[in-house]
Amino acid sequence: MDVKDKKAGDTIVVMTELVLPNDTNHFGNLMGGRLMYWMDIAAALSAMKHCNSPVVTASVDHISFENPIRLGNAVHLEAKVTRVFTTSMEVHVRVWGEDAVKQHRYQSNEAFFTFVALDPNGKPQPAPGLIPETPEEQERYKKALYRRQLRLMLSGKL
Amino acid sequence: MDVKDKKAGDTIVVMTELVLPNDTNHFGNLMGGRLMYWMDIAAALSAMKHCNSPVVTASVDHISFENPIRLGNAVHLEAKVTRVFTTSMEVHVRVWGEDAVKQHRYQSNEAFFTFVALDPNGKPQPAPGLIPETPEEQERYKKALYRRQLRLMLSGKL
Amino acid sequence: MDVKDKKAGDTIVVMTELVLPNDTNHFGNLMGGRLMYWMDIAAALSAMKHCNSPVVTASVDHISFENPIRLGNAVHLEAKVTRVFTTSMEVHVRVWGEDAVKQHRYQSNEAFFTFVALDPNGKPQPAPGLIPETPEEQERYKKALYRRQLRLMLSGKL
Amino acid sequence: MDVKDKKAGDTIVVMTELVLPNDTNHFGNLMGGRLMYWMDIAAALSAMKHCNSPVVTASVDHISFENPIRLGNAVHLEAKVTRVFTTSMEVHVRVWGEDAVKQHRYQSNEAFFTFVALDPNGKPQPAPGLIPETPEEQERYKKALYRRQLRLMLSGKL
Amino acid sequence: MDVKDKKAGDTIVVMTELVLPNDTNHFGNLMGGRLMYWMDIAAALSAMKHCNSPVVTASVDHISFENPIRLGNAVHLEAKVTRVFTTSMEVHVRVWGEDAVKQHRYQSNEAFFTFVALDPNGKPQPAPGLIPETPEEQERYKKALYRRQLRLMLSGKL
Amino acid sequence: MDVKDKKAGDTIVVMTELVLPNDTNHFGNLMGGRLMYWMDIAAALSAMKHCNSPVVTASVDHISFENPIRLGNAVHLEAKVTRVFTTSMEVHVRVWGEDAVKQHRYQSNEAFFTFVALDPNGKPQPAPGLIPETPEEQERYKKALYRRQLRLMLSGKL
Ligand SMILES: CC(C)(COP(=O)(O)OP(=O)(O)OC[C@H]1O[C@@H](n2cnc3c(N)ncnc32)[C@H](O)[C@@H]1OP(=O)(O)O)[C@@H](O)C(=O)NCCC(=O)NCCS
Ligand SMILES: CC(C)(COP(=O)(O)OP(=O)(O)OC[C@H]1O[C@@H](n2cnc3c(N)ncnc32)[C@H](O)[C@@H]1OP(=O)(O)O)[C@@H](O)C(=O)NCCC(=O)NCCS
Ligand SMILES: CC(C)(COP(=O)(O)OP(=O)(O)OC[C@H]1O[C@@H](n2cnc3c(N)ncnc32)[C@H](O)[C@@H]1OP(=O)(O)O)[C@@H](O)C(=O)NCCC(=O)NCCS
Ligand SMILES: CC(C)(COP(=O)(O)OP(=O)(O)OC[C@H]1O[C@@H](n2cnc3c(N)ncnc32)[C@H](O)[C@@H]1OP(=O)(O)O)[C@@H](O)C(=O)NCCC(=O)NCCS
Repeated sequence: MDVKDKKAGDTIVVMTELVLPNDTNHFGNLMGGRLMYWMDIAAALSAMKHCNSPVVTASVDHISFENPIRLGNAVHLEAKVTRVFTTSMEVHVRVWGEDAVKQHRYQSNEAFFTFVALDPNGKPQPAPGLIPETPEEQERYKKALYRRQLRLMLSGKL
Repeated sequence: MDVKDKKAGDTIVVMTELVLPNDTNHFGNLMGGRLMYWMDIAAALSAMKHCNSPVVTASVDHISFENPIRLGNAVHLEAKVTRVFTTSMEVHVRVWGEDAVKQHRYQSNEAFFTFVALDPNGKPQPAPGLIPETPEEQERYKKALYRRQLRLMLSGKL
Repeated sequence: MDVKDKKAGDTIVVMTELVLPNDTNHFGNLMGGRLMYWMDIAAALSAMKHCNSPVVTASVDHISFENPIRLGNAVHLEAKVTRVFTTSMEVHVRVWGEDAVKQHRYQSNEAFFTFVALDPNGKPQPAPGLIPETPEEQERYKKALYRRQLRLMLSGKL
Repeated sequence: MDVKDKKAGDTIVVMTELVLPNDTNHFGNLMGGRLMYWMDIAAALSAMKHCNSPVVTASVDHISFENPIRLGNAVHLEAKVTRVFTTSMEVHVRVWGEDAVKQHRYQSNEAFFTFVALDPNGKPQPAPGLIPETPEEQERYKKALYRRQLRLMLSGKL
Repeated sequence: MDVKDKKAGDTIVVMTELVLPNDTNHFGNLMGGRLMYWMDIAAALSAMKHCNSPVVTASVDHISFENPIRLGNAVHLEAKVTRVFTTSMEVHVRVWGEDAVKQHRYQSNEAFFTFVALDPNGKPQPAPGLIPETPEEQERYKKALYRRQLRLMLSGKL
Repeated sequence: MDVKDKKAGDTIVVMTELVLPNDTNHFGNLMGGRLMYWMDIAAALSAMKHCNSPVVTASVDHISFENPIRLGNAVHLEAKVTRVFTTSMEVHVRVWGEDAVKQHRYQSNEAFFTFVALDPNGKPQPAPGLIPETPEEQERYKKALYRRQLRLMLSGKL
């Protein structure tokens, strides 16, 4: 184990946002694009926490939107690095909506983002290794290889 | 051919945005999340143009970010409906960056979004059929079935 | 004809915006100032496309607001350079509102902006000549002289 | 003198804004469109103060931008109703920039906006009369007739 | 213990924000007002989580800004209800800055906000009791009475 | 009296904002955090006007929110420096809401902010002295010492 390797658990970023009028569509529900904006920021902060350098979004995998999130509800996001390849890192983001008044917390969606670590000149540079500890972290770590293959195929790089 | 069927070419939405400081990261490049926000709006407007009802983002397929887009550059987006299933529509969005000063226009990325047409109570309702005309439209129309399959599998619905 | 002269048709910029809650007044209609903000950006992008340098807004001619644009509607803007003087360019912007659900597209307004091309030190520099091709472009090109006269008079420069 | 008539001096609205990064262009100068956005709001608040009802922007006369306003500078706006016709009011807005560090206050520009007073159903309704008191108010009051003529001609209403 | 009483630990809200250009002053440091905006939202979400009704900010105690937070850094906020009076709740918010690249996490500041629980007509209504569990929670619970006294004195209500 | 001393009356900054949808909570009332954001900017502009250098928010004293401010209302802020210590200045901000349609102007709240003047390297530097002239200015000048004591105690510096 390289001294620079870091634990997956140390890359967690928790973010909470309040759904305001400008974030919503005709029905007063959060627009998908605004949620993707927040997911990208949560995931980027998690990747930066791991590699201690600026990062740039390389890709995002398929995202499904299961439940509308209402105006005035809270949006909770949790991001965690799941695997490091060389200069790129896969980050998992999970999202919940919460209606505090109705005391209702519901899963919204999840996604895998890929970020690349950059050196001060904006060129890709290697990121430290990742140590998955919990069973869930280890599971996601293992399956990351398949997702990487699918992702590179879908973007025409494999 | 159903009277309500509409041409793919009639669903085009062209959008142009200027990259402002708040849209950028440390290096003065557009953040991925801001671009996804614009892509979702362009795609939603295209879907609404086709089905003449409010729509909601059901999913977005894998997105790859090929080229950084600089602060002060223009972002051009073009969205077009590629296929209608029953209540859902697939929309293709293509993005270019443009540096007017350097006279440089470069492809950024593309993606397929899925929107669902909603009735006034917010329930899914059928959308009119789509008539692909150009070879490219016909090609995308045909392949939409495969993308749908992959998409529903990835979101655990198949 | 100077080699650097460019066609009017090559300066077109098409922009589409969605009217969000923060853009509207008490009645849920787009505020005039927000529309002028979008018009200025569309026109500036068109001018930059023509002169390939940064530009600055020198003036905007009279604008009339004929029809309210509703919350949730799309706003379509089309900007095109109409005439180049020396360092300054006149840009025409036309605006439509569109209610996709009611399938209603209506003209909103139009305006002429004047931009000045700037060199890297922020000083005015000559812009390439413009070639009007369509009858409409030629008509606007010809009348631009009268508008310029009125404009310089109104701004106390003549 | 009608009991409902009001003094011009009672319609003054003073607004101050700080120029933030997102308001600026490549050179760190305020974009014209952002300034027009603020001018429209200042003028609308002045018109509402006079007529005590919601208002809508009917038109804005020619605006000339004389001096760039720098990032981090303050923008001062002063709006005052200059004349009431029947349902429409002319509002004058004057703008200064101020660099507090360099102790430099400079005139930026000015403009005349026209607003229409609306009843609760959004239909034009008469606004109270205006009493100009200072020589400057009286001068602007008198000349408002000529501006109105030019304005209605330019918008094809005369 | 009333059945409706709730644990302090269940009211925690964790929020993370990225400092963007528009949030900063001349030196590229976060403006105090933007931080207060985020603190108010984090605290309001915590209060709503406790009382399961809309809330309104009644007051905020003295806030001291100890360390500048840099452009591009993350801001972490943690809010927790510390004591309930009748219709009002005291919420503690603590803020840290984090520079992921320099691996530096530093305390920024903290504050106590007071929110009032509102019924559907916008009138104050009693909030459930609070159970402080950890020593820190119990300490803050106890001292809340003194803070309340000072606060009501400072706002002229005692 | 030092030649650099300046009058309190010369530090007044008047700001007016319109309450837009994104500034409001469930009930259509202005959120406390948005108001604090505006208060901080008004106060900072007043401090900069006095010391002619960039400033940074050091602290804000207790703020009480007496009256809700409605969507569509105007918010008026008036900031004025009340006393200079060495590098720090105390600034008073008073806020009113105004419903132009109902012709109702109501006091919202007030607060004392403390700013520190910075030299070009971001280090504190002495600010010019302040000359209070009106009885109210003199009263606030005198009491500023007590507020300073309370403030330093509350932030653990005394
Ligand atoms: C999209 C949504 C309306 C589908 O509702 P549902 O109860 O699953 O409805 P149905 O099963 O009848 O499916 C409706 C259509 O959506 C399609 N669909 C559902 N989930 C999908 C997904 N993840 N990807 C692609 N299409 C999907 C179905 O295939 C079906 O299409 P068809 O009628 O053309 O065959 C619902 O999941 C929803 O409201 N999601 C949240 C949308 C949202 O708020 N987005 C923004 C989030 S921030
Ligand atoms: C302004 C508006 C209400 C006028 O409606 P209308 O049907 O033309 O009404 P009227 O003919 O009765 O005119 C009403 C008043 O407006 C004035 N007016 C109309 N167009 C005008 C223009 N372009 N410039 C100046 N005044 C104008 C008329 O002179 C008349 O004034 P008066 O009553 O003082 O004599 C209407 O054109 C409108 O709703 N426009 C859109 C406003 C808007 O949404 N602005 C923001 C767009 S983003
Ligand atoms: C526009 C500006 C660069 C002109 O500078 P200037 O010192 O007047 O320069 P010049 O006299 O050489 O004029 C340059 C060109 O601008 C044109 N111009 C100047 N003022 C104009 C006006 N009000 N309307 C239209 N054109 C104008 C001149 O006619 C000349 O055009 P030409 O070279 O095609 O013949 C200068 O006034 C400026 O910087 N204004 C502020 C621009 C700005 O910041 N806008 C946003 C404000 S928020
Ligand atoms: C807060 C508010 C609802 C209190 O209303 P009120 O008529 O004073 O009601 P009450 O006297 O019954 O007080 C209600 C509670 O608020 C508390 N309260 C009132 N003013 C307070 C203050 N300045 N600081 C702390 N608590 C305060 C009271 O102590 C009481 O608490 P308790 O029930 O736990 O004993 C009212 O002042 C208000 O609406 N203020 C504006 C809130 C707002 O819009 N904030 C954002 C402004 S931009």
